[in-house]
Amino acid sequence: MDRQKNGLVVSAHSADFVWRAGGAIALYAKRGWKMTVVCLSFGERGESAKLWKQPGMTLERVKADRRDEARLAADILGADIRFMDCGDYPLRVSDEALFELVDVYRELQPEFVLTHSQKDPYNFDHPLATHVAQEARVIAQAHGHHPEQAVLGAPPVFLFEPHQPEQCEWKPEVLLDISEVWDQKRRAFETMAAQEHLWEYYTRVALQRGVQASRNSNLKIKYAEGYQRVFPQVTGELA
Amino acid sequence: MDRQKNGLVVSAHSADFVWRAGGAIALYAKRGWKMTVVCLSFGERGESAKLWKQPGMTLERVKADRRDEARLAADILGADIRFMDCGDYPLRVSDEALFELVDVYRELQPEFVLTHSQKDPYNFDHPLATHVAQEARVIAQAHGHHPEQAVLGAPPVFLFEPHQPEQCEWKPEVLLDISEVWDQKRRAFETMAAQEHLWEYYTRVALQRGVQASRNSNLKIKYAEGYQRVFPQVTGELA
Amino acid sequence: MDRQKNGLVVSAHSADFVWRAGGAIALYAKRGWKMTVVCLSFGERGESAKLWKQPGMTLERVKADRRDEARLAADILGADIRFMDCGDYPLRVSDEALFELVDVYRELQPEFVLTHSQKDPYNFDHPLATHVAQEARVIAQAHGHHPEQAVLGAPPVFLFEPHQPEQCEWKPEVLLDISEVWDQKRRAFETMAAQEHLWEYYTRVALQRGVQASRNSNLKIKYAEGYQRVFPQVTGELA
Amino acid sequence: MDRQKNGLVVSAHSADFVWRAGGAIALYAKRGWKMTVVCLSFGERGESAKLWKQPGMTLERVKADRRDEARLAADILGADIRFMDCGDYPLRVSDEALFELVDVYRELQPEFVLTHSQKDPYNFDHPLATHVAQEARVIAQAHGHHPEQAVLGAPPVFLFEPHQPEQCEWKPEVLLDISEVWDQKRRAFETMAAQEHLWEYYTRVALQRGVQASRNSNLKIKYAEGYQRVFPQVTGELA
Amino acid sequence: MDRQKNGLVVSAHSADFVWRAGGAIALYAKRGWKMTVVCLSFGERGESAKLWKQPGMTLERVKADRRDEARLAADILGADIRFMDCGDYPLRVSDEALFELVDVYRELQPEFVLTHSQKDPYNFDHPLATHVAQEARVIAQAHGHHPEQAVLGAPPVFLFEPHQPEQCEWKPEVLLDISEVWDQKRRAFETMAAQEHLWEYYTRVALQRGVQASRNSNLKIKYAEGYQRVFPQVTGELA
Amino acid sequence: MDRQKNGLVVSAHSADFVWRAGGAIALYAKRGWKMTVVCLSFGERGESAKLWKQPGMTLERVKADRRDEARLAADILGADIRFMDCGDYPLRVSDEALFELVDVYRELQPEFVLTHSQKDPYNFDHPLATHVAQEARVIAQAHGHHPEQAVLGAPPVFLFEPHQPEQCEWKPEVLLDISEVWDQKRRAFETMAAQEHLWEYYTRVALQRGVQASRNSNLKIKYAEGYQRVFPQVTGELA
Repeated sequence: MDRQKNGLVVSAHSADFVWRAGGAIALYAKRGWKMTVVCLSFGERGESAKLWKQPGMTLERVKADRRDEARLAADILGADIRFMDCGDYPLRVSDEALFELVDVYRELQPEFVLTHSQKDPYNFDHPLATHVAQEARVIAQAHGHHPEQAVLGAPPVFLFEPHQPEQCEWKPEVLLDISEVWDQKRRAFETMAAQEHLWEYYTRVALQRGVQASRNSNLKIKYAEGYQRVFPQVTGELA
Repeated sequence: MDRQKNGLVVSAHSADFVWRAGGAIALYAKRGWKMTVVCLSFGERGESAKLWKQPGMTLERVKADRRDEARLAADILGADIRFMDCGDYPLRVSDEALFELVDVYRELQPEFVLTHSQKDPYNFDHPLATHVAQEARVIAQAHGHHPEQAVLGAPPVFLFEPHQPEQCEWKPEVLLDISEVWDQKRRAFETMAAQEHLWEYYTRVALQRGVQASRNSNLKIKYAEGYQRVFPQVTGELA
Repeated sequence: MDRQKNGLVVSAHSADFVWRAGGAIALYAKRGWKMTVVCLSFGERGESAKLWKQPGMTLERVKADRRDEARLAADILGADIRFMDCGDYPLRVSDEALFELVDVYRELQPEFVLTHSQKDPYNFDHPLATHVAQEARVIAQAHGHHPEQAVLGAPPVFLFEPHQPEQCEWKPEVLLDISEVWDQKRRAFETMAAQEHLWEYYTRVALQRGVQASRNSNLKIKYAEGYQRVFPQVTGELA
Repeated sequence: MDRQKNGLVVSAHSADFVWRAGGAIALYAKRGWKMTVVCLSFGERGESAKLWKQPGMTLERVKADRRDEARLAADILGADIRFMDCGDYPLRVSDEALFELVDVYRELQPEFVLTHSQKDPYNFDHPLATHVAQEARVIAQAHGHHPEQAVLGAPPVFLFEPHQPEQCEWKPEVLLDISEVWDQKRRAFETMAAQEHLWEYYTRVALQRGVQASRNSNLKIKYAEGYQRVFPQVTGELA
Repeated sequence: MDRQKNGLVVSAHSADFVWRAGGAIALYAKRGWKMTVVCLSFGERGESAKLWKQPGMTLERVKADRRDEARLAADILGADIRFMDCGDYPLRVSDEALFELVDVYRELQPEFVLTHSQKDPYNFDHPLATHVAQEARVIAQAHGHHPEQAVLGAPPVFLFEPHQPEQCEWKPEVLLDISEVWDQKRRAFETMAAQEHLWEYYTRVALQRGVQASRNSNLKIKYAEGYQRVFPQVTGELA
Repeated sequence: MDRQKNGLVVSAHSADFVWRAGGAIALYAKRGWKMTVVCLSFGERGESAKLWKQPGMTLERVKADRRDEARLAADILGADIRFMDCGDYPLRVSDEALFELVDVYRELQPEFVLTHSQKDPYNFDHPLATHVAQEARVIAQAHGHHPEQAVLGAPPVFLFEPHQPEQCEWKPEVLLDISEVWDQKRRAFETMAAQEHLWEYYTRVALQRGVQASRNSNLKIKYAEGYQRVFPQVTGELA
């Protein structure tokens, strides 16, 4: 029997993967892949306004709530989820945490990686997560890092859509049809009670990218997610 | 029986398609596609130095020689070829010629289009060819242009590698494995007697892009061609 | 009494101004400005698919229908509209047409100008309209062009949002709150029977830009339009 | 009575704010705003050549001299000034210092922020100051950072002009008329005895930006300062 | 005796070469080179405001005045000057004019070429002049253009500084020390009676570029001109 | 007797300087310059796959082998070499190491500096080396850093060619003819037994840059190295 294939998602905060890559995750889970989400932070400071407005709230309770929400969303999408608790606003990633992420790469040997955009003036944790996701990937490729382990190949890296794409110098180079898993993505959204104001926003993002996917392909696509590539696509096909 | 699929190559001069897209052409021809090359010019002034050094050479003889060479190269690659004779150094494309190219799009309904980079400070005919290839494509999509004809869909456009890529702001976003048709491409090169100095240059380009394709994929790829995309890739696959 | 102030909109096709700048037009009309839209083309070939599907349709009928629709939309927005009938797919602007547009600048002396993005790989008429709008503006500033007339000042130029902003290298540098005139813009949309598929698309654009405007300002803004500047803003205010 | 409005300037070294933002500071101080300058460093190593040439000079004396000069300049401009003494050449900002700057944001609730360009190959402290100014701003917006405090809104950030603008990929997107406070700015310059060679340089900068402001507006503006925006302008006005 | 070396300057209007390249011209003339300026237009409409304010002024008189001024400036700089009278605001260059410029390249065989920036939103004639200067250069390199003539080599092209450099996406990649010929350049300025407002502006440009040249080299340079390169520098020296 | 002139090369790993700058090093060594290579790391993890495949290999043995190889290559090129042993995959440069590099600048007073590209998604150590090389250079220029020492001037910085240039946003702005020292560079290559797969790759790079150097200059150049500049070139010559 073939080994199950893996996909890896590196998310700065515990909800980012839902809004930005929930469709890709659900799509590949449905195809029998093991999709693993690594959350570097719970987003316990920057993206939990609603929780903090509750009287007597503590950091530990916010973290626990965010963890539960994220785990539920991952379940709905069909993904595994791991938390690294590296802090939030600001996220700070030590070399130990970096090496822990390298271990994840070595363990999973993912076929592709999804992470944030390379710039984001609204959120400094996002580009840091991208940097760490990429630096860990490169270390995992090095024969001299734990030489007894199998090294990583060259999985492509796809950058998911930030909140304000043009301000982040992000460009959709790949439009992925997620129509068949849209309901799952929407249900995963709805676990994010702390960020209800984003539900309609990201539904509209999916619809707009769907129209654009249709326009760029002559297909009928209702919902899509946009990704930017870091590396050139290696292929035998132009069509 | 399925209709034969089409690919279209818009080449400024009569040899450009060989150096820059010969691999893609041979690959798709081998797969049973009809590949059509449109040469806007014979390259009779700018890229025929060797011919012009022969005593008594005339413009008509240069054109005829270039046409024969290009046709032979197209034969080797398995492609059809058409010539529009729009002049060279400078290339000048009238609206009549533009509409003629629109007719080609409507007739062939290509699945993809290959053409030059969008900038080239060494050769002003190249970006003009790209502009014309794209403007014709857009007109062919318009319901109001010859409304009785079937309109064109949205074939992706791939820009092939210019002679000095960094100076042309061109970036390889797609690396196409052409190893299986390399011999054909090399033989097509060798019909270009007027440009023998380029044979080794473009062999090295294919080898370098091959190494890079390997590095970006963990596959073993010996020869590759690089392409830049104009439009986002619409897909159901990230890996 | 003060002279009525003017704003000028240069639109490639007869509907572009509605989707892209309808809010700004209605807003300034409501403030008592005279807003003038110049349509270089009726969009009779490229953006009239629905009309061309009617049996027995002719070019003249398409133009007439598009003109009526555009005039109605302009009425709803409170704007004047003029048509230059320069052709469509491809738009072609002669020097005579350019000088006609220069005359419009000299006549209106607009305080600002709205036009298309500088690039658009989906629509070559749009960047051409922008080029013409800007070249006419510069000629209207020249003392030696009809030296007996008053020259134009230096009205800022704002580029409205294209259909696929990232592909057009367009970036929203100004977010204009159009909430108070949204209903007018939506009603103007709905005159565009030939392009009903765009109604929801551009409603979502306005909502997304509204969320972003709120996020960038701490105000509550429901609907917004995005613009890119061509020239630096000259001001006495930073807040 | 209305609360006094605040503006915040984050300056890497103790003189940067004078050359680069002195006009904006004086202008807003004159309008009754409280303008606060935070100097991350005294510039005691990199920008104090003249002091170091004095025999027996010590680091503490250089710092004290620079502090006095900067305070005097701030007085002339009408601004408050604070020093964080984070070191110079290289500037190094710990998370403690970052949080101290967050506190300043929370305390002042500024309406706008002025800081350095995002790149500067001549001075690595400048982009670091910008990064810190922006990261602190984002943390100050987070509900989970000191949840008992009022969070920061979304003040626009303006990047002031570096010494060699084109090399820093800086572009003047806003030209601020500072003519009415030019004399103050010039007097503040002249407190910078250690950098007398820059007085004429920055006078010329102000004159050039003034000519450009005039050219872009049809107004008569003698002295101007240029700023680049980080975020889109949210507005109800295009003119 | 060695053949006199040539430098070619392609200027859109009859004064541009003075402000922008007067130092380079005077420097090379002083070194015994033949410097030739080709003015595509007299600048009779766009840059002659002062003349047009005189009563009874005619196009022919403006042209004659501009020609005289430009010739005088060229004399002061030690250059030859030729006028192509292609019109102004808008400049329009026919293929006949293009070929005339090709003839100039073939005749002079220049060692380097100076022309405008590639973009300029304030002046559409400038980038057109650059395009023409470059297209003519490429045609002059073609063996099939007048095959009986000696072809052109590969002279580097340097783009001189536009009026508002950052808005034109122009960057100074070469800083040329013009101190020893500054007096000539200033005197050539002063022949431009119609544009007296620019004398001080361009004196300040030269001083600023001089300070920057000093800063980038550790030399003492008072006046400099900035140039951007189109092609890579080919050299045997890094220092 | 004149003081011997110095050139400095800052190399992330112990082999980078050979592939990327070996020609420049040999050329200047041949001209009597003292060329010094500083290797921040031995490349003991990321670029030593072949060594790690040997049974019983240890980190110390890999480092020792890489050191020997690099020293041999430096000998062949005629350069001095120093090792800083800052770690590899990831490289980590403490402020102590930074100041050590500052000392090197102060000691050598180099006329030029060679280092890596500013971006490299395949290798995060390379841009870090560039950052450190530049930050050290700037600190070495500061009068307040070890005020008793002579400060550094303003040596130009040249960025050598990365493995996949377009992906690193690197552009060859200078093409250096290295034909006369090619044999030395090739022999230095061949000491890199661990990276034999790169020998042909970098031979082809040199040949391609040679063809391009010829094309940009009309000279006959067989082998070249490409460099990008960080700072503008200050010069008295355009040809």
